[in-house]
Amino acid sequence: MHPSIDPNFKTRVRDSFSKQEMLTSLGAEIALLKAGEFHLTAPYDARFTQQDGFLHAGIVTTLMDSACGYAAYSLMPAASRVLSVEFKVNLLSPARGQRFRAEGRVIKHGRTLTVCEGKLFSIEKEEESLCAIMQATMICIRDR
Amino acid sequence: MHPSIDPNFKTRVRDSFSKQEMLTSLGAEIALLKAGEFHLTAPYDARFTQQDGFLHAGIVTTLMDSACGYAAYSLMPAASRVLSVEFKVNLLSPARGQRFRAEGRVIKHGRTLTVCEGKLFSIEKEEESLCAIMQATMICIRDR
Amino acid sequence: MHPSIDPNFKTRVRDSFSKQEMLTSLGAEIALLKAGEFHLTAPYDARFTQQDGFLHAGIVTTLMDSACGYAAYSLMPAASRVLSVEFKVNLLSPARGQRFRAEGRVIKHGRTLTVCEGKLFSIEKEEESLCAIMQATMICIRDR
Amino acid sequence: MHPSIDPNFKTRVRDSFSKQEMLTSLGAEIALLKAGEFHLTAPYDARFTQQDGFLHAGIVTTLMDSACGYAAYSLMPAASRVLSVEFKVNLLSPARGQRFRAEGRVIKHGRTLTVCEGKLFSIEKEEESLCAIMQATMICIRDR
Repeated sequence: MHPSIDPNFKTRVRDSFSKQEMLTSLGAEIALLKAGEFHLTAPYDARFTQQDGFLHAGIVTTLMDSACGYAAYSLMPAASRVLSVEFKVNLLSPARGQRFRAEGRVIKHGRTLTVCEGKLFSIEKEEESLCAIMQATMICIRDR
Repeated sequence: MHPSIDPNFKTRVRDSFSKQEMLTSLGAEIALLKAGEFHLTAPYDARFTQQDGFLHAGIVTTLMDSACGYAAYSLMPAASRVLSVEFKVNLLSPARGQRFRAEGRVIKHGRTLTVCEGKLFSIEKEEESLCAIMQATMICIRDR
Repeated sequence: MHPSIDPNFKTRVRDSFSKQEMLTSLGAEIALLKAGEFHLTAPYDARFTQQDGFLHAGIVTTLMDSACGYAAYSLMPAASRVLSVEFKVNLLSPARGQRFRAEGRVIKHGRTLTVCEGKLFSIEKEEESLCAIMQATMICIRDR
Repeated sequence: MHPSIDPNFKTRVRDSFSKQEMLTSLGAEIALLKAGEFHLTAPYDARFTQQDGFLHAGIVTTLMDSACGYAAYSLMPAASRVLSVEFKVNLLSPARGQRFRAEGRVIKHGRTLTVCEGKLFSIEKEEESLCAIMQATMICIRDR
């Protein structure tokens, strides 16, 4: 592991994850947590659907943004917070399915800005299909 | 009004809006509905917040995406549906406040694709401040 | 004028503009320069066209990126440089015409990051039409 | 090879590539051409640089947009044209180097819209480094 990485990053990421009411409301769970990569899963929930009964594009975004944010945060120093600067989402197919899995990966980690890629997969009868992709910029806010 | 516009577009947009479980869950209400423009408001809700207690970036996105989608849908033909193709969001300041107002406006309307701009304002003690902006592409799916 | 603005910002922006070989190659000229806003114009040039004879989307981007970058740079401190972090472009109509005009405007200015909106107009027989829009993030690099 | 793919796609893509004055001006050459993927290379050219002597972000975009456009076009029918709908670029490091290589890959191919990912690498002393990434939407215009 790279020496600059906070050795307690897993605890720090899990603590932040558990403080997000949004993720609790979605029933989201951590599926993979390592330096520079983060996956989460969440069940289909009719409360968060659009007019055709698919998961709303904003929720698809929420899941990928969280995955990207924590992928970035895993590489940030101990006394810091992460915020989303911006993201871009392409919706590839309707977000139908029993469960969803979002992946976030760091493409370029900098002192201030970290660029990530996200993917959302829907899971239906144990088959995964790619629903959406994200390109995102995260910023590190250092505690004073 | 432009002759190509469906004379019943307001009813059509309201019907679609009322079918979105997501918007009901958010307590969202239509604030302005005219050809090519749509505003909605929603209250702060702790269930949809991130780790610092601000509205989650994914919910900020949900509100702007809905405003842009209905701005676009208002110009589409009677027998059609609207879907988001892609969007890009810049988060300008934390989404704190008692209420939020999202605006969507059509920049370029085409037969298949419609490009929109969205804005999200937070409202705190009757003062509005701009929290986020969106650039989005919507697609018209014609019923067969 | 806001007291934090570098009083020599116009000279600083013009100096940087004149150092861009790209803008010289395009025959670009400054059309408006004020705090937080920048316009430039450039002629049609067959060397920079795509397969249908329209200005290439990458050149459309170049013009808007430069307009946004200098709009942002006008608000930055004297001893600093500006770099593009990211941008998103929607191409609305083919970039045909005798001349082009790009506008850049600061939407949110921060100490490190500045968010801008850009527009590209084509000019044909003295009529302007909107060809493309941009949403961009610029970063301020302070000299040590 | 998928049966729906135009058997003459390579000739069709090469023909379109050779018609782009922009790519000729850049000295761009095809490096890889297969169904759903396209790479091109171009030399450093001082005429296309920004104020620090690096390749301009708009040219970085031009190279990736062309790679993505031809990756998409390779999957389109014989009697069709390709146009860029929109793209989003993150600039990861300065585009310095002797040569540049852009890669475009189709992520999702649809009848009307095709979503692609692009990458730009700079090549300096035979070492490649990732300079920029793109997420893009292309549209198929069918000849009547």
